[in-house]
Amino acid sequence: LAAAAVCGIDSRMARRPDPFHAPDDEARRTARALLAAARHAALAYLDPETGTPGISRIGFGLDGDGTPLTLVSSLSAHQPALAARPDCAVMVGEPGGRGDPLAQPRLMLRARARLLDRAAPDHPARRAAWLAQHPKAALYVDFADFAFVRLEPVSAVLNAGFARAFRLAAADLAP
Amino acid sequence: LAAAAVCGIDSRMARRPDPFHAPDDEARRTARALLAAARHAALAYLDPETGTPGISRIGFGLDGDGTPLTLVSSLSAHQPALAARPDCAVMVGEPGGRGDPLAQPRLMLRARARLLDRAAPDHPARRAAWLAQHPKAALYVDFADFAFVRLEPVSAVLNAGFARAFRLAAADLAP
Repeated sequence: LAAAAVCGIDSRMARRPDPFHAPDDEARRTARALLAAARHAALAYLDPETGTPGISRIGFGLDGDGTPLTLVSSLSAHQPALAARPDCAVMVGEPGGRGDPLAQPRLMLRARARLLDRAAPDHPARRAAWLAQHPKAALYVDFADFAFVRLEPVSAVLNAGFARAFRLAAADLAP
Repeated sequence: LAAAAVCGIDSRMARRPDPFHAPDDEARRTARALLAAARHAALAYLDPETGTPGISRIGFGLDGDGTPLTLVSSLSAHQPALAARPDCAVMVGEPGGRGDPLAQPRLMLRARARLLDRAAPDHPARRAAWLAQHPKAALYVDFADFAFVRLEPVSAVLNAGFARAFRLAAADLAP
């Protein structure tokens, strides 16, 4: 039954048209602008115990070199999950205004999480940059269970509205 | 090395306090209100080819019996993924206003996707109910590649702000 289901998927995927465009400069600019503007994101991770997907809201920013960054508590569900299984996905781009939220631009990033050490020499600079963009994080940034995590891009899909989906490489996102 | 990493996680999880409360009536009401109000959501799914998490924005509503529901295209990345691997996670509850988005309520649902047939006898009623809440979907609801998917709850976490996280059972979400 599992094999039949997989074959069904394969034959459907073989028939279906590729809905993704190669990125142009405008798509790259839109993707980078969504990353630069985002202050929070949705994170998809893999539960290491069940192997099923989990989802969380995370704070979101860019590290000094433009790499996506988050600040997480070790008490969250996703922190130990990312430590055990670093493959994850991140979505940025909030629906706003009155249009269809599915027609508004968002970026879906495949990434690998790299947990950073609070004791690292570059922690103070990263902390200061984060607080400049996330002032409310001053309440918890120095709690012992909070640390930064880099979300290193593997690839991305920009969905800029119906029939405007682009598949991007990590290099397309670099500032 | 993998084993050492896993042991590290296990010992940390054993030490850490359980940050989740048992749900009270207010938590159940908040969770149901978030589900009832949501018109879109973030969906975490498992890529059947790579086994890594993917994420998408989806339209969101409730089916006649209160079960979470979405309308998806077979041209999306998540539709064939859900067909192959129905375990998924859904987040609803949009940050709004000026507060910290991480202090605003959201519900993270673990679910199993059940793809519905457009030819099913109850499709017309479901379609009409969906369009009443998602009027812009009239543009594509009748395209041959679109069909409804029920997202049947397994469990949920309500995060209603710092130190206000509740672990809910599927029964806590039923209207």
